[in-house]
Amino acid sequence: MKSEELVQLTVSQAAAAIADGRTTSEALVTAFLARIKARDGEVGAWASIDADQALDQARRADTVRGFGRGVGPLHGVPIAIKDIFDTVDYPTRMGCPLYEDYGRKQDAACVDALKSAGAIILGKTVTTELALLTPAKTRNPLALDRSPGGSSAGSAAAVGDLMVPAALGSQTAGSVLRPASYCGIYGFKPTLGLISRRGVLMQSPTLDTVGMFARSIDDLALLTDCMSAHDPADPVSYPRSQPHLSEIAGSEPPMTPTFAFVKTPAWDEYADPAMREAFQELCDHLGRICDEITVPGLDHVLEWQRIVQLAENAAYYGPLQDKDRSALSDGLNARLDEGAKVPVRDYIEAIASRDKGYAGLGELFETYTVILTPAAPGPAPKLEEGITGSPIFNGLWTYLGMPAVSIPLMEINGLPVGVQLVGQRQDDARLLRTARWLAQHLAEST
Amino acid sequence: MKSEELVQLTVSQAAAAIADGRTTSEALVTAFLARIKARDGEVGAWASIDADQALDQARRADTVRGFGRGVGPLHGVPIAIKDIFDTVDYPTRMGCPLYEDYGRKQDAACVDALKSAGAIILGKTVTTELALLTPAKTRNPLALDRSPGGSSAGSAAAVGDLMVPAALGSQTAGSVLRPASYCGIYGFKPTLGLISRRGVLMQSPTLDTVGMFARSIDDLALLTDCMSAHDPADPVSYPRSQPHLSEIAGSEPPMTPTFAFVKTPAWDEYADPAMREAFQELCDHLGRICDEITVPGLDHVLEWQRIVQLAENAAYYGPLQDKDRSALSDGLNARLDEGAKVPVRDYIEAIASRDKGYAGLGELFETYTVILTPAAPGPAPKLEEGITGSPIFNGLWTYLGMPAVSIPLMEINGLPVGVQLVGQRQDDARLLRTARWLAQHLAEST
Repeated sequence: MKSEELVQLTVSQAAAAIADGRTTSEALVTAFLARIKARDGEVGAWASIDADQALDQARRADTVRGFGRGVGPLHGVPIAIKDIFDTVDYPTRMGCPLYEDYGRKQDAACVDALKSAGAIILGKTVTTELALLTPAKTRNPLALDRSPGGSSAGSAAAVGDLMVPAALGSQTAGSVLRPASYCGIYGFKPTLGLISRRGVLMQSPTLDTVGMFARSIDDLALLTDCMSAHDPADPVSYPRSQPHLSEIAGSEPPMTPTFAFVKTPAWDEYADPAMREAFQELCDHLGRICDEITVPGLDHVLEWQRIVQLAENAAYYGPLQDKDRSALSDGLNARLDEGAKVPVRDYIEAIASRDKGYAGLGELFETYTVILTPAAPGPAPKLEEGITGSPIFNGLWTYLGMPAVSIPLMEINGLPVGVQLVGQRQDDARLLRTARWLAQHLAEST
Repeated sequence: MKSEELVQLTVSQAAAAIADGRTTSEALVTAFLARIKARDGEVGAWASIDADQALDQARRADTVRGFGRGVGPLHGVPIAIKDIFDTVDYPTRMGCPLYEDYGRKQDAACVDALKSAGAIILGKTVTTELALLTPAKTRNPLALDRSPGGSSAGSAAAVGDLMVPAALGSQTAGSVLRPASYCGIYGFKPTLGLISRRGVLMQSPTLDTVGMFARSIDDLALLTDCMSAHDPADPVSYPRSQPHLSEIAGSEPPMTPTFAFVKTPAWDEYADPAMREAFQELCDHLGRICDEITVPGLDHVLEWQRIVQLAENAAYYGPLQDKDRSALSDGLNARLDEGAKVPVRDYIEAIASRDKGYAGLGELFETYTVILTPAAPGPAPKLEEGITGSPIFNGLWTYLGMPAVSIPLMEINGLPVGVQLVGQRQDDARLLRTARWLAQHLAEST
């Protein structure tokens, strides 16, 4: 296969091509490395990359396959890891000079799971400062004068620019779904607790969720299946029977799914007018399987997410600030100062309100398969604005611990905008199946 | 059986006597009601009691037994309930005028479980104001000029004075084990999450634990077995196989248990000199199966418990204060004001430190069966001191979620002092078996 073809492959396609002998891991990794060499000077998606090490791992994968031994579902496929996940192959730097000497650590549980499934760790991708709001060097590969979003900036840009078929990210408010939307790819934040966070930087353990970027729904399901073992070391991890997302996500829904279009309280103030129009068209197009639904109390949910993240940021990053305030950006210092002042009563109320808030959505899921809502307020902001965009359409679902996926279904002025689908907790399989159905339905009907 | 004999019966003995036909539930309830009538004017253990209703339930229990139908393990045995557990048979008043009209509610999950096992709810026992530190009207039945402890004041006093064979209580710092110590009875706080808290007043959901008072270890095991079903409605409840505490607690230990005598950082400042001496004697008596162990970091644990309870008190009771400050005692108002000022960073750190603190005890349990430590700093304080005694020897184990039992093994100047044993989380059975062994061993050897 030619290099131009190889970099277009999804994870599932690449794994199949290696398994069939149509290509090798070495050829695949070589193609991606060439793409990175050609493109990353402009995009700036990578925090660290070691071509020799990656090629070495790829050759070993090819040797193992040559022996005819059983191999994992990701055998020989390169994956990128956001630079807040501990890795033994690369140092981890968290986008913060205070971690300059943090170095290599035992692989995070999910990285270890990917490697056990056969993945090659291609490198570490740029995160914004401590996975928060201050922009990093990364540019949007589809429009170099725009932000790729954040905080998983490098992961989204790398996948969006065909430098790697998939990448890990993390989401505390909107750090996976928003950059996926801006970079025109699929982003997935599973139910809180489905993927272990052992070995991942914690900024708000109530909210921090491992997620990922890829270029197909099948890949999101496959990667999640590889990483979703119960881990008693992560307090939010829950016991479950093996989810087999791939099987369910790849199947036809038994009934036509139905969509609850939820504008959320952010709609009027934040949503780009062109995006509002695009959503109205989408809903009209879906017709009687989509209703606009107003969910009462979502303004509280937005506020609870904000309070929990602010206060936990102050608690978990405060010690860094105590150590060396000048090593943090002004924006982050201001944020941590604000967080330290959150009244403890407000924080405890916000923590206690999560299950109540989720229960408030119960009835909706008796009628609708998923919630449909924007993945971001509009296309990626211009770099000159100095922001990574607003997570206002994502944070409330993160707080509620619900699985959410961003699907690259819309375009505004030639720039991608994602449609976000949100499902019931622990029903990630149905969410992905519905996402796949929607993408296919729209492709066939337009 | 005579009335004087009946009121001496433990729960297990009373249940057996009813099952054998040696007595009836009606005779038993009548005997306890007579004892209450004679004694409660002085002791003040009861918040509400309805003799006709209790007798009516007792007669119905006798009728059911007369039919020869299968009956529960507590069939016909009266139990008392602290006045912070919702009950359908009695109003609940939480020791606070703001709950004057709260009224009757669906039984709390654990009350419902007791009734399902056949128990008669004899009445509600006095709690201190909102289960906190301000003393209530109850006196210590063994020394009427002394406190029964708190907050489960009425439950401890009622069981200590033979007005009921067992009673439910709750512990957030030391509200079960300390009054058990002062009133010369057995008190048990199981592992956090073993008994559901659904329908119980919450003052600090991180710490609040259902516990109980009785006059034998067998009773503690039997009552816990009746109440320990997993309840998904309580976030700290955990799935488990049916524990069968009774069977294990009643058996001989396979090996002689070993005791880690832990003085805790409170020893020097708080422990009564006579109590220190009594403990030294106990340890000498146990000889080579008891070692004094210093656990590093317990001062932090004490502080974390304090911070969590203070802040959560402010969050959970603050709304009452907002409603009518004048309805709360000055002491409680001051406490809630203090709690509202806890820096959110300190609170989040205290929450995050619990499992770390517990892990720090890991090695100890490789060598010792249980921790041995005082249940209270000394005998019950005099009423004129205006306090319910200090929970300083209990709060750290409550914070760590570990099961703890108080055994009435010591006397200082004719007043009882409890020995507290603390076990590993979710190993309540071994803790009770060890407690039973210790009580028996000391009875035989002295």
